[in-house]
Amino acid sequence: MRTQVVIIGAGPSGLLLSQLLHLKGIDTLVLERQSRNYVLSRIRAGVLEQGMVDLLKTAQVGERLEREALIHGGIELAFNGQRRQIDMKSLTGGSVVTVYGQTEVTRDLMDARDAMNGHLIYEAEDVVPHDFDGGRPRVTYRKDGVEREVFCDYIAGCDGYHGISRRSVPQETLKTFERVYPFGWLGLLSDTPPVNDELIYSNHERGFALCTMRSLTRSRYYIQCATDEKPEDWSDDRFWDELRKRLPGDVAEALVTGPSIEKSIAPLRSFVAEPMRFGRLFLAGDAAHIVPPTGAKGLNLAASDIFFLSRALTAFYETGSEELIDCYSEQCLRRIWKAQRFSWWMTSILHRFPDSSPYDLRLQQAELDYVTTSTAAATALAENYVGLPYE
Amino acid sequence: MRTQVVIIGAGPSGLLLSQLLHLKGIDTLVLERQSRNYVLSRIRAGVLEQGMVDLLKTAQVGERLEREALIHGGIELAFNGQRRQIDMKSLTGGSVVTVYGQTEVTRDLMDARDAMNGHLIYEAEDVVPHDFDGGRPRVTYRKDGVEREVFCDYIAGCDGYHGISRRSVPQETLKTFERVYPFGWLGLLSDTPPVNDELIYSNHERGFALCTMRSLTRSRYYIQCATDEKPEDWSDDRFWDELRKRLPGDVAEALVTGPSIEKSIAPLRSFVAEPMRFGRLFLAGDAAHIVPPTGAKGLNLAASDIFFLSRALTAFYETGSEELIDCYSEQCLRRIWKAQRFSWWMTSILHRFPDSSPYDLRLQQAELDYVTTSTAAATALAENYVGLPYE
Repeated sequence: MRTQVVIIGAGPSGLLLSQLLHLKGIDTLVLERQSRNYVLSRIRAGVLEQGMVDLLKTAQVGERLEREALIHGGIELAFNGQRRQIDMKSLTGGSVVTVYGQTEVTRDLMDARDAMNGHLIYEAEDVVPHDFDGGRPRVTYRKDGVEREVFCDYIAGCDGYHGISRRSVPQETLKTFERVYPFGWLGLLSDTPPVNDELIYSNHERGFALCTMRSLTRSRYYIQCATDEKPEDWSDDRFWDELRKRLPGDVAEALVTGPSIEKSIAPLRSFVAEPMRFGRLFLAGDAAHIVPPTGAKGLNLAASDIFFLSRALTAFYETGSEELIDCYSEQCLRRIWKAQRFSWWMTSILHRFPDSSPYDLRLQQAELDYVTTSTAAATALAENYVGLPYE
Repeated sequence: MRTQVVIIGAGPSGLLLSQLLHLKGIDTLVLERQSRNYVLSRIRAGVLEQGMVDLLKTAQVGERLEREALIHGGIELAFNGQRRQIDMKSLTGGSVVTVYGQTEVTRDLMDARDAMNGHLIYEAEDVVPHDFDGGRPRVTYRKDGVEREVFCDYIAGCDGYHGISRRSVPQETLKTFERVYPFGWLGLLSDTPPVNDELIYSNHERGFALCTMRSLTRSRYYIQCATDEKPEDWSDDRFWDELRKRLPGDVAEALVTGPSIEKSIAPLRSFVAEPMRFGRLFLAGDAAHIVPPTGAKGLNLAASDIFFLSRALTAFYETGSEELIDCYSEQCLRRIWKAQRFSWWMTSILHRFPDSSPYDLRLQQAELDYVTTSTAAATALAENYVGLPYE
């Protein structure tokens, strides 16, 4: 079998790439290790930059999003008993973010791919990319017990941090950069109305807390926790009690609680692999980089990778030029490192670190005070939060 | 003997306070442990915020400064082989900094105090503030072998980090905050023309370097060094060679070298003591806080303390109201912590830290890339560098 581009991974990156290339007449095959339902059951991010929303519209999957998503023009930072708003919309001259769950993005992309008879294979086992350093790359996998092989022009590794794509690269050609944070996020999803119409990021002496949402009837709350905590040790009541303690009084009082739909712990870390292209293999999204969730950049970075990659591949198939392919890695990485910086910074100003000195704590309060009172500093936060430009 | 305000320390803070109070008809006595020449021989900062320049003019010591000082509307950041300018003047709507040595400020203040017959006692030994928690504070000292005692309304501790003022405060009422950096600055002063018309802050893999100046014929250069280095191990040639290696090629080529007038090593640290008022004793300047020199905030923070203190004391003597005296500490500290934040940040993005991971280094480059390409981020740097407002 032969196709133009094999895409490994049917998360939002892989599906979006497949859809964008299809619309340009480029054939793709998407191989996914998990089942469709498994992919849809993963609870992930929910704040989309305008660049990603525009890209989804280009991919013709913006219709339900446009109808159902919430538009947010600001966020709140809570610290030292105060609530201060960052009015992103006015600071950036009109930019906003869109609240719409990653699960919904994935579902919309799956539906669109189905409607166009996209080639997707779920539960593809032992997917392995081969010979991408030469002119004749191929991907092998097993489906229903049968070994298969697909030849292609290019391979897109959209298979996440634990995927095979990055691990297939000769390790001496790969440089990795990593930081691990000494805490995690315990998240709870519930069908309760959000406590506030904007997200609240709370720096509290008991630890960070975040009030976010997926819709007007579905809330997502997070609390900073130790890395060795287990979700099963957290009853709903214990979670709600702890959350309340970390929020400003009026917010805690307004909190509507209810049974959890999902509860899970995510460790926080930063990771980048360089470069993001190896011959005819590209890495995109979590396969190449991870950010801590503070600042909501993970999914959005995957989208900007796909923007650069789809544009590069389209240009190649339309004109034969490899110019954009040659600068894919560099273009992505420049934006990725800025998002790494922003995510690290948001994480560092909002969390309590076990080894913080009294000086560090005062510095953190000074940073929060400064960023919420200086127009320039608030604008810097806002322009990163709504998303830096794609080039 | 009796005066209205005893000022301990005849550095720029103490002299400026004495001069400002004198002009409002308030009697002061300044007690200095060292000789006049010793005070004048200390080589310190050289970049003044507009707020400090304005305050010097209010103190009627702006004349020579106005004639001789250099006005800088920007600085350069060098990293990764590039030079990028921060155009502070246009980013802040016209604000600039003034390059004029601390030694010159001190000399102008001494001359002004002499011209007005200010009461200054140099080489005052064993200065000790007493009873400042009651209504009848006094200061004892020894001069020419004779014990003396001065009663007063208030005591201003302007005697630096190692001075007696802060050490006289009951330790249980004092909270201190500190950070020590794992490096120092080796500085060289020479009568050579500056290599560039603006300051150059250079982040280099061999360590930080700074090209600054005191005038068009006197240059000041610094290189980051280990904390256990000794100036005597650094010949002029060794210093110039190392400096050249840390500068962009064109700058290194243009560097004019010459014999050093002074060479010294300063450790880098951050320190804050809270509060800054204990009954009738005030702390100001280095007696209460230290910043690392990156960003040139030390002298300027001392000036803003003196602004708040002179205003509070003047209001008290004019109206009897202690309102401004009561908020002196809080007003100073809010600005101090913002300057602490800025000085820490400038230090952290420009130096090489011995324990940096490859991730940290990339993050530092991303920060430099971001701050030199985002107008908002560059404005945040600029507004701090030219000086945040006094209230």
